[in-house]
Amino acid sequence: MTQTNRQILLASRPEGAASVDNFRLVETPLAALGEGQVRVRNHYLSLDPYMRGRMNESKSYAAPQPLDSVMIGGTAGEVIESRNAKFKPGDKVVGMLGWQEYGTSNGGDLQVVDTTHVPLSAYLGPVGMPGVTAWYGLNRIIEPKAGQTIVVSAASGAVGSVVGQLAKRAGCRAVGIAGGVQKCRYVTETLGFDACVDYKAGNLYQELKAATPDGVDGYFENVGGEVLDATLARMNAFGRIALCGMIAGYDGQPMPLKHPQLLLTQRLLVQGFIVSEHMDVWPQALRALGTLVAKQQLAYRETVAEGLENAPSAFLGMLKGQNFGKQLVKLI
Amino acid sequence: MTQTNRQILLASRPEGAASVDNFRLVETPLAALGEGQVRVRNHYLSLDPYMRGRMNESKSYAAPQPLDSVMIGGTAGEVIESRNAKFKPGDKVVGMLGWQEYGTSNGGDLQVVDTTHVPLSAYLGPVGMPGVTAWYGLNRIIEPKAGQTIVVSAASGAVGSVVGQLAKRAGCRAVGIAGGVQKCRYVTETLGFDACVDYKAGNLYQELKAATPDGVDGYFENVGGEVLDATLARMNAFGRIALCGMIAGYDGQPMPLKHPQLLLTQRLLVQGFIVSEHMDVWPQALRALGTLVAKQQLAYRETVAEGLENAPSAFLGMLKGQNFGKQLVKLI
Repeated sequence: MTQTNRQILLASRPEGAASVDNFRLVETPLAALGEGQVRVRNHYLSLDPYMRGRMNESKSYAAPQPLDSVMIGGTAGEVIESRNAKFKPGDKVVGMLGWQEYGTSNGGDLQVVDTTHVPLSAYLGPVGMPGVTAWYGLNRIIEPKAGQTIVVSAASGAVGSVVGQLAKRAGCRAVGIAGGVQKCRYVTETLGFDACVDYKAGNLYQELKAATPDGVDGYFENVGGEVLDATLARMNAFGRIALCGMIAGYDGQPMPLKHPQLLLTQRLLVQGFIVSEHMDVWPQALRALGTLVAKQQLAYRETVAEGLENAPSAFLGMLKGQNFGKQLVKLI
Repeated sequence: MTQTNRQILLASRPEGAASVDNFRLVETPLAALGEGQVRVRNHYLSLDPYMRGRMNESKSYAAPQPLDSVMIGGTAGEVIESRNAKFKPGDKVVGMLGWQEYGTSNGGDLQVVDTTHVPLSAYLGPVGMPGVTAWYGLNRIIEPKAGQTIVVSAASGAVGSVVGQLAKRAGCRAVGIAGGVQKCRYVTETLGFDACVDYKAGNLYQELKAATPDGVDGYFENVGGEVLDATLARMNAFGRIALCGMIAGYDGQPMPLKHPQLLLTQRLLVQGFIVSEHMDVWPQALRALGTLVAKQQLAYRETVAEGLENAPSAFLGMLKGQNFGKQLVKLI
């Protein structure tokens, strides 16, 4: 059978802010499978802030996304055809098949997942890369101790929501930073954080100060910019900062850190990280996270765009914080 | 016998740059020793950048220096009178007796030192706090491996000179940053660094790039400001930064960090520290450093001001980099 695949390519690199013009939708015929190959119908695409960095030419933690090729990204879907003994039609799989309706793989990058108790899309969120990112940064960098105050930015997001809930389970005071009243209410009422500061309300430092009466011992940073400046000024001596994202600076304008001397005066530790370089923790983290989700002890939220053609605009909206929870694209 | 002590007090807190007007020289009679007390004639005062931070009211790693009391600081001298069984006249001691000709102590803060092979003043430099600072930041934070490139700022100074020499002994490429041709020549020719970049020559980044063809794996930061910006841009992935001083910002003007996103993209570790909070390493570090100095395998240099009354101007000069090596005051 000949089928047509639809794909989104990176057409050009952004100059300043990324736009939909940087992407191109193409239709391509699907070739017959070779020996050992697997064909997957993608059901969900994961949209993640790191992708913005890869759109640039410049040095980042990952090689740049090549021009005129399919946008790289995490996917969850179902095997529809297999010439690989490890996979059979009907298997639910996660992988890195990118922004396209059908992916073809030799299987090495695919993981079969069990959707009996955990929904397929959760493997792109709390039981996937974002969840492990939260787990690693919190447990291996911040190393929270009961009674400490842990702050996380982008607190309603795929990573931040997990950080705060895990911090609560560790006996900490969890304080979120998020954009808007609605997100902040979700962070405290649904996710169970002790407090959430709305950075859009215009009084970030004062509200953060009120929410962290004992200062801040651990900070999980997803944002950078003024949010980082404000939190740095609340850090206690020997505080620890897991630097996971600086989305505020992704569109090219440098965001200076106003008071780096606080790193010295408070003897802080800062560790930048990318979770794909710490594969050794994934099994342990995924087991813990999967159990929590299956028992409905870890809340999460998704924003789902429908249709491959809407992936670029959903991605750009996410960079501006227009999503609410994990941003996915459902392929219909 | 009644003797007169001369002391320098902090008279006022700086507004902006510190000046000699912030200090006051007073003469005070020496009281008779109480039971358990020791009197020390100070021979050398140590002048150190951290003292500038303590002159401010604001939160720093140490409590502010109290107004109208003797400037706190490290000293090396000789016991001249003792009512404490652990000390006898003639003992050479180091302590924290401050900017005064005579110190009176209960002995708890005094260490007897052996000047047979190590000169007394070296206990305020390479075999004292600056040396242990270098040892700790290099060995416990940077953790150098043979073949790596280690950069240190203020490379001709009391701390930086030891960092580079220890890095060379660990099999690393040692690159210094210093101010002026004369200091740079000393760093390479006398201290044995592989290269030294003169930040005053006006081409810091390009020269640093040329001196670090394989990038930078470890950075020992004594300075902050543009030197930190430039070095950050040369850091390799997984680089480690020991943040020891940010003298560039001590006079009150904030020195922003221009590109904090490099901490993330290069997955860097930054650790601020103050060596007095790591007393557990002092015996090991001092043993190693004392052996090297006694064997003349660790070069160091001193700038010695003469007379207590010249301590303030020598201190202010040091903050501007006018010293060359460890800044001391010899009390005559």
